Amino acid sequence: MSDSISRSIVGIQGASKAWIEGLLSDARSYAAGEQPIEIPAGVVAALLFAEDSTRTRCSFEMACYKLGIQPLVLGKSGSSMSKGETLLDTARLLEVIGSRVLILRHSENGAATTLATSLSIPVINAGDGTNEHPTQALLDVYTLQQEWGTFEGRSLAIVGDILHSRVARSTALAVEALGGTVRLCGPAALCADAPQGVRATCFQDMDEAIEGVDAVMMLRIQRERMGAALSPDPDVYRNHYGLTAKRALALPPHTVVLHPAPMNRGVEIDSEVADGRRSRIFNQMANGVWVRMACIARALTE
Amino acid sequence: MSDSISRSIVGIQGASKAWIEGLLSDARSYAAGEQPIEIPAGVVAALLFAEDSTRTRCSFEMACYKLGIQPLVLGKSGSSMSKGETLLDTARLLEVIGSRVLILRHSENGAATTLATSLSIPVINAGDGTNEHPTQALLDVYTLQQEWGTFEGRSLAIVGDILHSRVARSTALAVEALGGTVRLCGPAALCADAPQGVRATCFQDMDEAIEGVDAVMMLRIQRERMGAALSPDPDVYRNHYGLTAKRALALPPHTVVLHPAPMNRGVEIDSEVADGRRSRIFNQMANGVWVRMACIARALTE
Amino acid sequence: MSDSISRSIVGIQGASKAWIEGLLSDARSYAAGEQPIEIPAGVVAALLFAEDSTRTRCSFEMACYKLGIQPLVLGKSGSSMSKGETLLDTARLLEVIGSRVLILRHSENGAATTLATSLSIPVINAGDGTNEHPTQALLDVYTLQQEWGTFEGRSLAIVGDILHSRVARSTALAVEALGGTVRLCGPAALCADAPQGVRATCFQDMDEAIEGVDAVMMLRIQRERMGAALSPDPDVYRNHYGLTAKRALALPPHTVVLHPAPMNRGVEIDSEVADGRRSRIFNQMANGVWVRMACIARALTE
Repeated sequence: MSDSISRSIVGIQGASKAWIEGLLSDARSYAAGEQPIEIPAGVVAALLFAEDSTRTRCSFEMACYKLGIQPLVLGKSGSSMSKGETLLDTARLLEVIGSRVLILRHSENGAATTLATSLSIPVINAGDGTNEHPTQALLDVYTLQQEWGTFEGRSLAIVGDILHSRVARSTALAVEALGGTVRLCGPAALCADAPQGVRATCFQDMDEAIEGVDAVMMLRIQRERMGAALSPDPDVYRNHYGLTAKRALALPPHTVVLHPAPMNRGVEIDSEVADGRRSRIFNQMANGVWVRMACIARALTE
Repeated sequence: MSDSISRSIVGIQGASKAWIEGLLSDARSYAAGEQPIEIPAGVVAALLFAEDSTRTRCSFEMACYKLGIQPLVLGKSGSSMSKGETLLDTARLLEVIGSRVLILRHSENGAATTLATSLSIPVINAGDGTNEHPTQALLDVYTLQQEWGTFEGRSLAIVGDILHSRVARSTALAVEALGGTVRLCGPAALCADAPQGVRATCFQDMDEAIEGVDAVMMLRIQRERMGAALSPDPDVYRNHYGLTAKRALALPPHTVVLHPAPMNRGVEIDSEVADGRRSRIFNQMANGVWVRMACIARALTE
Repeated sequence: MSDSISRSIVGIQGASKAWIEGLLSDARSYAAGEQPIEIPAGVVAALLFAEDSTRTRCSFEMACYKLGIQPLVLGKSGSSMSKGETLLDTARLLEVIGSRVLILRHSENGAATTLATSLSIPVINAGDGTNEHPTQALLDVYTLQQEWGTFEGRSLAIVGDILHSRVARSTALAVEALGGTVRLCGPAALCADAPQGVRATCFQDMDEAIEGVDAVMMLRIQRERMGAALSPDPDVYRNHYGLTAKRALALPPHTVVLHPAPMNRGVEIDSEVADGRRSRIFNQMANGVWVRMACIARALTE
């Protein structure tokens, strides 16, 4: 069983630079049309998405198709979990019927780790609560590596609801593991401290936080959190924490912009920026497929 | 980009007779078990169905399977559109992760055209608002061509809620483009004028409208529209605009009956007619697969 | 058409011992990695699941993948049945677009039989109302046969809501057809008589019912039925009809425990029993794939 745990990908916390770089290297091979890892025929991957998701599910499904793997998708509706079945029993079902890897999206922190230690097939965490979203982090650093080559001396500012963001945590951990520095920024109620394991400093002033950085990653803000932190008025949030066209103009010329999406255009990011020359947002989505192919292939064969 | 627009299929308006006949010819080849157009291996088609649909989605999925294409289905639930993401951003996601064609069902008129001009992959309109439903029109004329051979001198009556029906509009446009004539019929509130681009005349009296026609296509009527137009009593609607067994008896012997389905049996069409010798309703469904194979293959290779 | 009816699998009632044993034999071949029945290329199986289901749908999908068949899944949401289309019209659609077999889950008793007599493709009943669930019964007897070899002199106790359970009925019919005996047990309101065609005797006292049996199958109890039968307090139900760790201790050493799942752990079954040495619950799930492969293959080729 330790074998399957070692093939699971549940988080970036504790991951070595070498492990991350190995996955990025495999992802580059897939992007180049190579098949660095041979996948046996007839493999089925279970996608257990107990939380709604568009892009992560589509991206994993596409990664499966490109690897010649059949995805078996189980969403929130139509699942026995609504009948009170435990997550572990649902996951065991997917294991015993023959899935070779389980890809899990779940609202509870630690859900992926729990399953990885309980099942005899590897688990890939596709986002668990406010804990981790490792494949998002890997596609973020893949995208940054395309820009930077090396992470030494490079800095990323992450702006928004840091407190509830598994993306902020995982991506910050990955950037730091690769030798870059991270700044976190958001309203005091949403960015009091760096998430567990992250060394970054927290800023409340966005102009200060993004000054001179090499990349800015904007986070989606939910209306109710915007209101709890500042004001229910989206314009107030945008004025304080939105990457407006004006703020983007003040960035160094080489600085790129990321967003895990879905975007609230006109709130945390202006459309001119999302669609502008600095944006790598659609590159992130494209890179997500290569990174997820690498993760699935590792889980199946390592 | 103009290249991908030219491969998109967003409507029948403006389509030439030759273009329609080319697609019908390809569809006949598929029905005959031939593969008139070679499809590369590993193609993924995105099905973005922002509106519920049974038969159109199943028909497109089946067409994909028969072409050796993998469908990636994104429905209304579980999509980021419910989180306020724009349609264009969702569509771009599907494009950048590697879909080679986008098949779109959407409630807004013009949605398919907007995407076709914005994406670099072709778009197939699977129904947009009250605007167009070109693959339905193509399967309708495919079915009529099986009966008629040529459209010259042939007439089709379309009966029901003309005002809100993208099927009425697209099918009327296609029949007229091929040289046939169309009569439209419905309550005054639902059939005041012919839809944009359609030359057909409008009738309020059904017996007059269907007299001597070569085919009758009945449209599904929604209960709330039935009430707004005439009376909330389904029997009143049926008496005025239903294809009853009695009305069917008065048709010329060779006249066939179509319906895009799903049917309200006993309201706009009697079961004796739907299951009777004139009905080509299940032929339409079968033909839909061949027509959609032809459309997808065109979009991928033209 | 009688040909397709003979290939349909709508229930265990009336099935011969030889027919059941033939399917179990095919299932064993699939479990051994053999392909006892050749499936043509390009087959699509329609899965029409008008009732929610996790494990049955996933198990059938996995069986399709393992047979090289493409499943076309139509769930409750997104189906035209919500627009008032009849079940038969929806099923005909799936037939005429080219599905080669229809796998049906439906809330109405007899739905599968109705379709099997109306369509020209075979139908596999994946559960219809309180009537039958033949593939569950087959996987249950497959699992018991692994333990027992032969059913002569063997006994199974089924405990819970017998009245509403299609599993209780189908599994009891299968065990009796193979020569075993069945005891049924539940609160008087839920277990007054044996279901139609079943010879088993009914018990209200669980300790009496399970005394000396070779296997116990626990049924999921729904909270509202628990209350109607005994008390809304789950502990009261558990005390009377739960397979507690204490009750399991009193069973003969060789007695095994089944459950069709999803389980209410701590209500009808204690976790120590579900995960204990007697449990064959996860074996049942694994065996379900082999049995469903056998059923689909039969339906396609017999």
